[in-house]
Amino acid sequence: MPNSRRPKIGVFDSGVGGLTVLQALIGQVPDADYLYFGDTARLPYGSKSAATVAHYAVGAVRYLQDHGAELLVIACNTATALALPEIKAAAAVEVIGVIEPGADAAVAATRKRKVVVIGTDATISSHAYRQALEMRSVAVREKACPLFVPLVEEGWVEHPVTEQVAKIYLAEAFSDEAQDADVLVLGCTHYPLIKPLLRRVVPEHVAIVDSAESTAHDVARQLQIEPLSDTSKRRGVPGLKFFATDSADKFRRMGTRFLGLPVENVLHVDLKE
Amino acid sequence: MPNSRRPKIGVFDSGVGGLTVLQALIGQVPDADYLYFGDTARLPYGSKSAATVAHYAVGAVRYLQDHGAELLVIACNTATALALPEIKAAAAVEVIGVIEPGADAAVAATRKRKVVVIGTDATISSHAYRQALEMRSVAVREKACPLFVPLVEEGWVEHPVTEQVAKIYLAEAFSDEAQDADVLVLGCTHYPLIKPLLRRVVPEHVAIVDSAESTAHDVARQLQIEPLSDTSKRRGVPGLKFFATDSADKFRRMGTRFLGLPVENVLHVDLKE
Repeated sequence: MPNSRRPKIGVFDSGVGGLTVLQALIGQVPDADYLYFGDTARLPYGSKSAATVAHYAVGAVRYLQDHGAELLVIACNTATALALPEIKAAAAVEVIGVIEPGADAAVAATRKRKVVVIGTDATISSHAYRQALEMRSVAVREKACPLFVPLVEEGWVEHPVTEQVAKIYLAEAFSDEAQDADVLVLGCTHYPLIKPLLRRVVPEHVAIVDSAESTAHDVARQLQIEPLSDTSKRRGVPGLKFFATDSADKFRRMGTRFLGLPVENVLHVDLKE
Repeated sequence: MPNSRRPKIGVFDSGVGGLTVLQALIGQVPDADYLYFGDTARLPYGSKSAATVAHYAVGAVRYLQDHGAELLVIACNTATALALPEIKAAAAVEVIGVIEPGADAAVAATRKRKVVVIGTDATISSHAYRQALEMRSVAVREKACPLFVPLVEEGWVEHPVTEQVAKIYLAEAFSDEAQDADVLVLGCTHYPLIKPLLRRVVPEHVAIVDSAESTAHDVARQLQIEPLSDTSKRRGVPGLKFFATDSADKFRRMGTRFLGLPVENVLHVDLKE
């Protein structure tokens, strides 16, 4: 039975990238109050060790819980890859990461049972996607693409340099035994912004999976909320509240590009370590 | 009179970039004990607000002082630009940043009294170089180059993509009223690693100034140590000890590229905020 109560959902990321996940969540579960935590003072998590990432993520997640979150979405591939068990252990509510839903979507899309995953250094070297996909009997090629995040943040989402970098990274990713892989998983929340460019660079037969949509599906299922397809229902307006550990003003400016909606109501938060 | 006592010098940076400054220091003042603090768990400072950077830098500098540093070198353009007064106020010993020595070297090199400065977003938007150079009656064009640090960290120091990015950034930097500037200041400690590439991209008549050397000169002067030129003297071997807030192992690996020497003796440090 669909849940009629308006849920309070905590969304956590190291910065603004997770706003692409929030965008998908709003699309699927609009009638909810969202608390988004961006740990912008300590980003990027991609270059940090597992212990550091776990320490930071647990602090942020506790903050969201203290502010009433009844369900937590870890909208950060690195934090999910490096610290999901620690986060789950520290949380008193349900926690959903982006990797399992992403892996499920990849499995549904592949016919060759061969998938390429791209992400930050930390996500890739954690082999979290490899483990999730191999458990589903799908072969995986992993490739770290550390320049994509700064290129997106420079605003070069349709730039010849980004295309050249993408060609170099993806030629390496789709080489040798991964030549005939038919799915590309965007294992970083920044990458949806260069999806049109990546679409041009990867072979036509390759499906591009970004885990934001499937994560949003999982959240809707968890909350027993009716599927998006039923658009005849009157839909609510989401409540949006943002917390950032670095400048609120900067979060507002950058965030709008990632969310595709105006980002207001940002509170600066000082997290003691 | 030259100082005969072996000094203990604290060098602070947000990561491994400051090791290019340490390299210059070792060249000028080899007979010293160096304590290098890399705040790798919280890098990069370049995308953070002034308040956050000041808070982090003061903590690190206090740590170095508590471990015996008698002179502090802020080998981080961002921290110098955003937080030098706060660091000086918090320190009980002499503090030398990289910006004033860099500005002095630029003034000495320019005949047109027109200089281009490149650096991270935070360094450039602080206008610290602009202020230092305008006080010396030199006109300045400032240009943020946020992709250079990740390109250097990707190891693409002699790569066509880096050259293309450099051409775009520098064409913009040396345009309009800055067309006839004759000095390029590398306002970021990562940039010396792409100095040969930048040398090819900027016009021949442009002198490239990196502040590491002039900072090392200032330190030698401060310590009343004989100039480097006197190589007939028996020179000591530097003591090197490193502190990193993220993985010591990662610091060791990355650090060697920046220092040009093996990086050993790395201690992981947890700084409470």
